Amino acid sequence: MGDFNHIVVAKFKEDVIVDELVKGMEKLVSDIEAVKSFEWGHNIESNEMLTQGYTHVFSMTFRNSEDLTAYLGHPSHVAFSTTFSEAIENILLFDVPAVIVKASA
Amino acid sequence: MGDFNHIVVAKFKEDVIVDELVKGMEKLVSDIEAVKSFEWGHNIESNEMLTQGYTHVFSMTFRNSEDLTAYLGHPSHVAFSTTFSEAIENILLFDVPAVIVKASA
Repeated sequence: MGDFNHIVVAKFKEDVIVDELVKGMEKLVSDIEAVKSFEWGHNIESNEMLTQGYTHVFSMTFRNSEDLTAYLGHPSHVAFSTTFSEAIENILLFDVPAVIVKASA
Repeated sequence: MGDFNHIVVAKFKEDVIVDELVKGMEKLVSDIEAVKSFEWGHNIESNEMLTQGYTHVFSMTFRNSEDLTAYLGHPSHVAFSTTFSEAIENILLFDVPAVIVKASA
């Protein structure tokens, strides 16, 4: 077993400046020790049938589910969630205890 | 910039034995040098509104988009894709050049 992955897939409202949201996330991550890693990016897959219009993927890892719970309940996260929720048009969320088949070299 | 992430989110048909599919993926990963890392897991988020019924997440990383292209065109991948396609009820696909904000310790 590997990390506990927390993956958010989002499509934002048209007027949202995603870079500003990401800055908020960077602050979150620096505030909260429980976050082991965080990366994000634009989805460049162009097949709309496969992406369902989602444009961004945010991926955090935690050492275990307790650390994820600590993150979700952290005041900085609770405050940021309101901002984030107002920005999204559509969202998917996946919490995945990962089985590592091939580890990063 | 970090890796190039290839994320597949799936819901399988009822009679599918996912462990067997994963064995096929393990073989793929061992056949294809271009795959830098591979992990997968069950989604344990229970809010149906946020998961849209998707149950599994598969995540591969590549060093760059050329390696992803090599993977997609590899005969082992092409052969496995047929098996995988027959097993899925719903699928989402995201190709994401990742910006690493906080690296795994």
